[in-house]
Amino acid sequence: MVLSRVFQPQNLREDQLLSLEGRSGELTCKSQQLMLRVGLIHPASPGCYHLLPYTVRAMEKLVRVIDQEMQAIGGQKVNMPSLSPAELWRATNRWDLMGKELLKLRDRHGREYCLGPTHEEAITALVASQKKLSYKQLPFLLYQVTRKFRDEPRPRFGLLRGREFYMKDMYTFDSSPEAAQQTYGLVCDAYGHLFDRLGLQCIKVQADVGSIGGTMSHEFQLPVDIGEDRFAVCLNCNFSANMETLDLPHTNCPACQGPLTETKGIEVGHTFYLGTKYSSIFNAQFTDVHGKQSLAEMGCYGLGVTRILAAAIEVFSTEDCIRWPSLLAPYHVCLIPPKKGSKEEAAAELTGHLYDHITEALPQLRGEVLLDDRTHLTIGNRLKDANKLGYPYVVIAGKRALEDPAHFEVWCQNTGEVIFLTKEGILELLSQVQVV
Amino acid sequence: MVLSRVFQPQNLREDQLLSLEGRSGELTCKSQQLMLRVGLIHPASPGCYHLLPYTVRAMEKLVRVIDQEMQAIGGQKVNMPSLSPAELWRATNRWDLMGKELLKLRDRHGREYCLGPTHEEAITALVASQKKLSYKQLPFLLYQVTRKFRDEPRPRFGLLRGREFYMKDMYTFDSSPEAAQQTYGLVCDAYGHLFDRLGLQCIKVQADVGSIGGTMSHEFQLPVDIGEDRFAVCLNCNFSANMETLDLPHTNCPACQGPLTETKGIEVGHTFYLGTKYSSIFNAQFTDVHGKQSLAEMGCYGLGVTRILAAAIEVFSTEDCIRWPSLLAPYHVCLIPPKKGSKEEAAAELTGHLYDHITEALPQLRGEVLLDDRTHLTIGNRLKDANKLGYPYVVIAGKRALEDPAHFEVWCQNTGEVIFLTKEGILELLSQVQVV
Repeated sequence: MVLSRVFQPQNLREDQLLSLEGRSGELTCKSQQLMLRVGLIHPASPGCYHLLPYTVRAMEKLVRVIDQEMQAIGGQKVNMPSLSPAELWRATNRWDLMGKELLKLRDRHGREYCLGPTHEEAITALVASQKKLSYKQLPFLLYQVTRKFRDEPRPRFGLLRGREFYMKDMYTFDSSPEAAQQTYGLVCDAYGHLFDRLGLQCIKVQADVGSIGGTMSHEFQLPVDIGEDRFAVCLNCNFSANMETLDLPHTNCPACQGPLTETKGIEVGHTFYLGTKYSSIFNAQFTDVHGKQSLAEMGCYGLGVTRILAAAIEVFSTEDCIRWPSLLAPYHVCLIPPKKGSKEEAAAELTGHLYDHITEALPQLRGEVLLDDRTHLTIGNRLKDANKLGYPYVVIAGKRALEDPAHFEVWCQNTGEVIFLTKEGILELLSQVQVV
Repeated sequence: MVLSRVFQPQNLREDQLLSLEGRSGELTCKSQQLMLRVGLIHPASPGCYHLLPYTVRAMEKLVRVIDQEMQAIGGQKVNMPSLSPAELWRATNRWDLMGKELLKLRDRHGREYCLGPTHEEAITALVASQKKLSYKQLPFLLYQVTRKFRDEPRPRFGLLRGREFYMKDMYTFDSSPEAAQQTYGLVCDAYGHLFDRLGLQCIKVQADVGSIGGTMSHEFQLPVDIGEDRFAVCLNCNFSANMETLDLPHTNCPACQGPLTETKGIEVGHTFYLGTKYSSIFNAQFTDVHGKQSLAEMGCYGLGVTRILAAAIEVFSTEDCIRWPSLLAPYHVCLIPPKKGSKEEAAAELTGHLYDHITEALPQLRGEVLLDDRTHLTIGNRLKDANKLGYPYVVIAGKRALEDPAHFEVWCQNTGEVIFLTKEGILELLSQVQVV
């Protein structure tokens, strides 16, 4: 891929960004500003964004990491429609309970639907339709990665709080409360592992069950100043909880009586132990070890896919430059050949060779190396753009590319190092890159 | 993965299938019957289906093939919201023109949206928002693979004509009619290549432009008896056209005057040369070689993703057994160990070893080998199930697995061959499998 052909509105001015969103003074967070400015997203309507090519690439990588983690614990991927019949939601009373958050519509025959913000009703009805389930088949860990819809009263912060967004939602079905608790722990551990792989230091906090219901719930909070959730952590023990769950004023840790510190966070994951709240309504049963019909014990587990992308950018980036979790960078390497007509122009060919060498020697990097072919621009200007977009490795064919052997200038953006390497050195460096 | 844990309602009886769909006498096509019976899909509401794990696997493979073909011609993947503001559709008059096919809704502030059945309006407005486009950047080939919505008056045939479905839609922007024609040809060739890779013998026929508009259009038709489209092919020359485009009664080929044969088909792809129909409305411009503003020449190109899956099953399967395009089979290999307590039980361990050998020697098949661990069932019963689900290779540890060296019975489902092979023979056979 060559950069001159990428569909990406670049280097927008502040006033252009504001007019894009159609409301001045609302660009209140870094990730939203940066993502708009370098052309990662483009507003479509309030709280709805077009995801542009770099974002789609990053999101597809994130989905692959999620797939790996969910399938490692036995997760099976399904795909449920967005159009969700009103009957299902009336059965759980959430048609009214969720009120204006649900986007509702009627089809040509007058039948009512909502656009699914979550799928407890649908998945429970689906599992209930399997009439011959045996305890031997359980647990089922069923998940999907699909668009969700929520009519936020005040969508804001770009992808952090939108009205249409991607979510990974998993629903688990177990044969006993004990087994369900075990599954609950398994999924929480997988979430922990996932965030570790992304380099995101999330905190698992006790949470309120809200409109989903159930008896136990945890949030995975990413501590950030602009976070809209407030939670308390104890510095003595492992206790942490959403402020909503604490009796306030409450200044001491309920577990060890140590002092609590209040922190702001972005909720990037949420887990619920549901018990039989939904299985009892839809009659999701299995045959137990004694041959009797018994209700499945359920859990549900969400990850905000587009939200994680924006939250990671919020945490890793500087005011002007995007930084990605290494695994998720849209392209791992950006090659910058010399300016046309410059003294170094003779090194242009070397950049082409380097491109070929990298993709031959390191097949995992095929499709991960971008050539900035805008050779009418100086190296400096292109480096500035590369710096903004946050490619983990920027490789420049500058003056020292004319030495024998040629040396390339390598900017390792995630460590801040700048080093000069030969072709062999670059291959060795890049052989360490993990591609998902 | 072991089969006993797959979430998949299996071996449903005819009356159960009918009650699933809630309307008797409506299971009028083979793919719908088969996909319901073996648990590939499950109805959620009229024309909306839950895609179960095997279907999700097949669809993800299809999407990878599509990505390869679209990116090979310079396609860049984007992702546009389903919620599409009414203003856009009013601007092109399609808000009224498309009438009841559009699923419409209002948000909490009373703003009107439709659920996008296609995205000409959205993508043209998006490209128009890029104010500094130069002819040097064109063509842009922008595509997405997302859910689409169409309120079909009479959804039927399962995934072949649903109300919520997956589509790949590409939109191209060129700097001249000539360049746009070239891009049009490029995308049509990519579609041809895609269908070839899937083994689907599609015919490219002249088509009507319908509500999308433009000046030229082709459909990719898969000839099938249950197809709802009727088109004519000339046996003398390459002419073929949708019957809608012909002056009827018209019995001779307009190109060579030869006789025309009428055929039924399923439309699996559709291409449109749009000219400036949309770019003129939304003012999607670029700076041409003379420095003047000029309207982009557009094309749009659709592939029915979920429809291709069902159409392939319709074409390849027998009345009772699903067959897949090799590239798309949910799992490539099913291993069947001996029945517990049988004379061959000693060969059970060999099956485990074979599993390890395959995934070690052929890393591309990791995740593609399924073990049918339901050893309380006879080999014959499990083979019957495997036959229905259409794994391209079924490997059985039967009597001859006790020989030295062990011989496994291998059913090559796509050729109909049954052969006995040693472990080494199996590795050689499977090394030929193409995995996408």
